[in-house]
Amino acid sequence: MRLTEQARGVFVIAPTPFRDDGAIDLESTDRMVDAYLGAGASGLTILGVMGEAPKLDAGESLAFTARVLKRVAGRVPVVVGVTAPGFASMKALARGAMEAGAAGVMIAPQPGLKGDDGVMAYLQGASEAVGDAPWVLQDFPQANGITISASMVQRLVAADPRLVMLKAEDWPGLDKITVLRRMETEGKMRRISMMGGNGGLFLPNELERGTDGIMTGYAVPEMLVRVCDLIWKGDRTAAHDLFDLHLPLIRYESQPPLGLAVRKYVLARRGIIASAAIRAPGPKLTPETRADVDWMLERLAARDPVARRAA
Amino acid sequence: MRLTEQARGVFVIAPTPFRDDGAIDLESTDRMVDAYLGAGASGLTILGVMGEAPKLDAGESLAFTARVLKRVAGRVPVVVGVTAPGFASMKALARGAMEAGAAGVMIAPQPGLKGDDGVMAYLQGASEAVGDAPWVLQDFPQANGITISASMVQRLVAADPRLVMLKAEDWPGLDKITVLRRMETEGKMRRISMMGGNGGLFLPNELERGTDGIMTGYAVPEMLVRVCDLIWKGDRTAAHDLFDLHLPLIRYESQPPLGLAVRKYVLARRGIIASAAIRAPGPKLTPETRADVDWMLERLAARDPVARRAA
Amino acid sequence: MRLTEQARGVFVIAPTPFRDDGAIDLESTDRMVDAYLGAGASGLTILGVMGEAPKLDAGESLAFTARVLKRVAGRVPVVVGVTAPGFASMKALARGAMEAGAAGVMIAPQPGLKGDDGVMAYLQGASEAVGDAPWVLQDFPQANGITISASMVQRLVAADPRLVMLKAEDWPGLDKITVLRRMETEGKMRRISMMGGNGGLFLPNELERGTDGIMTGYAVPEMLVRVCDLIWKGDRTAAHDLFDLHLPLIRYESQPPLGLAVRKYVLARRGIIASAAIRAPGPKLTPETRADVDWMLERLAARDPVARRAA
Amino acid sequence: MRLTEQARGVFVIAPTPFRDDGAIDLESTDRMVDAYLGAGASGLTILGVMGEAPKLDAGESLAFTARVLKRVAGRVPVVVGVTAPGFASMKALARGAMEAGAAGVMIAPQPGLKGDDGVMAYLQGASEAVGDAPWVLQDFPQANGITISASMVQRLVAADPRLVMLKAEDWPGLDKITVLRRMETEGKMRRISMMGGNGGLFLPNELERGTDGIMTGYAVPEMLVRVCDLIWKGDRTAAHDLFDLHLPLIRYESQPPLGLAVRKYVLARRGIIASAAIRAPGPKLTPETRADVDWMLERLAARDPVARRAA
Repeated sequence: MRLTEQARGVFVIAPTPFRDDGAIDLESTDRMVDAYLGAGASGLTILGVMGEAPKLDAGESLAFTARVLKRVAGRVPVVVGVTAPGFASMKALARGAMEAGAAGVMIAPQPGLKGDDGVMAYLQGASEAVGDAPWVLQDFPQANGITISASMVQRLVAADPRLVMLKAEDWPGLDKITVLRRMETEGKMRRISMMGGNGGLFLPNELERGTDGIMTGYAVPEMLVRVCDLIWKGDRTAAHDLFDLHLPLIRYESQPPLGLAVRKYVLARRGIIASAAIRAPGPKLTPETRADVDWMLERLAARDPVARRAA
Repeated sequence: MRLTEQARGVFVIAPTPFRDDGAIDLESTDRMVDAYLGAGASGLTILGVMGEAPKLDAGESLAFTARVLKRVAGRVPVVVGVTAPGFASMKALARGAMEAGAAGVMIAPQPGLKGDDGVMAYLQGASEAVGDAPWVLQDFPQANGITISASMVQRLVAADPRLVMLKAEDWPGLDKITVLRRMETEGKMRRISMMGGNGGLFLPNELERGTDGIMTGYAVPEMLVRVCDLIWKGDRTAAHDLFDLHLPLIRYESQPPLGLAVRKYVLARRGIIASAAIRAPGPKLTPETRADVDWMLERLAARDPVARRAA
Repeated sequence: MRLTEQARGVFVIAPTPFRDDGAIDLESTDRMVDAYLGAGASGLTILGVMGEAPKLDAGESLAFTARVLKRVAGRVPVVVGVTAPGFASMKALARGAMEAGAAGVMIAPQPGLKGDDGVMAYLQGASEAVGDAPWVLQDFPQANGITISASMVQRLVAADPRLVMLKAEDWPGLDKITVLRRMETEGKMRRISMMGGNGGLFLPNELERGTDGIMTGYAVPEMLVRVCDLIWKGDRTAAHDLFDLHLPLIRYESQPPLGLAVRKYVLARRGIIASAAIRAPGPKLTPETRADVDWMLERLAARDPVARRAA
Repeated sequence: MRLTEQARGVFVIAPTPFRDDGAIDLESTDRMVDAYLGAGASGLTILGVMGEAPKLDAGESLAFTARVLKRVAGRVPVVVGVTAPGFASMKALARGAMEAGAAGVMIAPQPGLKGDDGVMAYLQGASEAVGDAPWVLQDFPQANGITISASMVQRLVAADPRLVMLKAEDWPGLDKITVLRRMETEGKMRRISMMGGNGGLFLPNELERGTDGIMTGYAVPEMLVRVCDLIWKGDRTAAHDLFDLHLPLIRYESQPPLGLAVRKYVLARRGIIASAAIRAPGPKLTPETRADVDWMLERLAARDPVARRAA
């Protein structure tokens, strides 16, 4: 299964489960895969920032990828983040992941690239490094300081048929989605799949601007699936009503790097992963923060029946 | 009236109203002051980032300050942002503002300071530059890249009796509020006023951690006042219920630099300022974004009676 | 006298002399102007980074500008740095400076602009802000993190007849000079004046690539003048021999922000300014650093007769 | 052989030789090792920035390390750069390198660490990650934006007996060397080896402040060895005279990332490595730049007999 421009729905960004001693927890990995697919995920993305990818060594990255792919067993496409300081590591991981059955890879530009020309040259080189893998461009300036304008996306899409998806998480970014979709309808750009991000903080708005779904790691992905469905069947009010119930927790998860710890805490509370452990350097939840999260989950459970099962 | 450690409530961060031709709109300034005080503001803060302070020249800054102070007429304390590239400009503006009747000044460290020592030396120099003015330390690393740890705050407070307030908008920042309040209760730090920020995105949580209110520019400040009141009278559920209604718009305003344009749009829609104009360089609202905001205001009006009058 | 594309020679970047108490030293200002013109300067540039421009308030900037212009009395063109956080301050200073007789203004983009489009829009706005003043584009990415590619320069030059000079201090930057000059000779770009920078660290190489001189603040500007002359009369070996004698001190001055303190120390030692004082925040010279500089000046005096008079 | 606080002399930072097709060139690696040892190197450092470390994959890093160590065969200590985005990769490379016979590892903090506390915690974690390996702290704020004050070095040295060397390349950094050495003589800090850096741009000055040598990759390391010897035998004038002859080329190499291409060009010209190839993304030398370098080498050969053999 190869990722295509037709990709649609919720691609859950999966964390990498660790045991309390810091080793990768493969049993939790299986359980997590099952939980995400059970929640309605249309795809999975692993080894992103949320997957603590830079904290794994090369062997661990491949082993974790293999385990996820084995468990998914072709039911949905799996995208593997291959962002790395250099093209050689990117190439090694991309090849390993594609051979193991990944559907595509995700690439974000490195910090420090100089000017639009520098960014374009980097992305061209990265695309070559990942061989014949379909790839997702992660547009995430808050994390790497790199601006990718709509016209740069347009040029990249024109030049590279393997660029099939944009993870659109520029901030503010809604108007960029509108501009890109307009370029497509006006015939100025090949249509690609566009996924929202930013922890889901703008999910319904992104969908209304034209995204095909979302790629994010919110710890109650059932909501993401339902909001997409509601928007697509035209029930805007119900979509926003449901989304708004979850917004307090989404907002709370949108505090890097604390947000990852919150997500793992929720996933552990839900019984999906065994431990909320994060590899150093990483944040630890204080009792006050855990109480905040518990309070939000409690409120959520009282208002959203699906979240009740989740919480 | 001088700002003190007892300051409490909602300090609304005011924009600088411009006419469509870019000149400062002093009539709207008066109306805006009245609207904020009518909404229950305990204080005002002007010439912050939201006030487009760097886009005013020195004369404009003083003229706008004088107009606001005249209209406030001592009813509430007014804090003037004096963050500037150098101490001479900071000194000139602080002196002018205090002579015109400001209650205190607000200072954020400059980008590029080197190490904790560099930050501490800068803030000491800045405190000297503002003469005998009480001052607010703006802890806002997302904007300037400067980290101020809890122990740095502790040292600053110990060394400088004129430091009377912290605008706490580190991110994630809730645990820092908890740590600082604990230092105070354990006698390790003089008590200061602590105000939340970040557009209000964590208002009830900040209050629960111990802030004395919030200093932010949300375009419906009536809600900020009511949430503070509800938390302080112990009605946590009602506070969160009310806050959650406004969270979609708060989130939408939390997209710098677009958020300022959204706020001015809402204030203009409410009839408080005549024009939503922003000085260049600055964002313009697209029809799609205005429609998003209109939709949120409509939903808000249907759910929150106070917002209905506002919208 | 207005700055034109024909500008050529050494534009000395002047510091702002302060007294030990921190006030601007206008007597030293006069003496400094005379010394620079006596050294063969073709122009002066004031209120750059080296002029501690951000540490002056608006009134001081205008007063210092007026004093320099009065003393220069039209003998050479004077360029005034107007880089400021916002266009209003830039406009006020540019108007004041041009009315007082400046030949043009110098503009560098602000840190944090997003993508090539953001930089271009900013510079267009800045050009409008300075009215009808001829302007110098300072291309100095080490200081502001902004990349301006050769093709961006080309577009700016095409669009804006008042852009008459490039202060070329990208790093590495020699090939960019070559590329821009080639664009001109191939008819792809209007010819503009191009000045080297970077403290003179690459002066002869820059001249060989096609600069029209240099705009920098090296404390022995007599050397800069002579190296230009030697290169232009074709005596490459003599030019490099002379330059290489001064390179140890040039290198030592190229340590921001210490370099400015070194320059003021040398200028004070030469009797040109009364005090080496720098406004806070700024570095102080240790005895070890002063001894380093003394040793370099001594070696220089033993090898370069002109430097002997200087030292 | 383990690296100790007694380390002294010139540790040449070696590039990673590639063939024109981008593969690691192991034959050139052997020749390069021999050339450096023949030039008088007291040690080697591999897989630094100059070694294009981030462009190698994990397997390549270990293979190159093994080859260098085999060729060195215990004649001098070899330091391996293990700076990596996460501790797992750092740990894997450090273990592999130490097992293959490395004398120690070099660590620089990651960009983006928050405040002094964040830097200290990171370095503590990194030290744990490299197991029982002696380590070099690379203090290189120009590359990573991290400030490490003298008192932070003092605390790290006190806490960690395996921290045996400081690569001192803060900028300006001479006074920091003085301060650290003073701490040692006053009994406030354990003595460690201190090596200069920054491409050698301040070599004699660093030695006069108290460094034990230098760790850099200047393409004519014979000069570095001789300048150290001259300073240590008290012939300051001869040391500076020799150094100053090389300063134009040192300066030219100090233009990241172009400098690495210049160094490889010189090493290839000298017959030490077969190809000057750099892995993408990386700079290419223009004919004009090659001509600049040729001219400098020619001038050097005419003035320094040792350089003549080199050129």
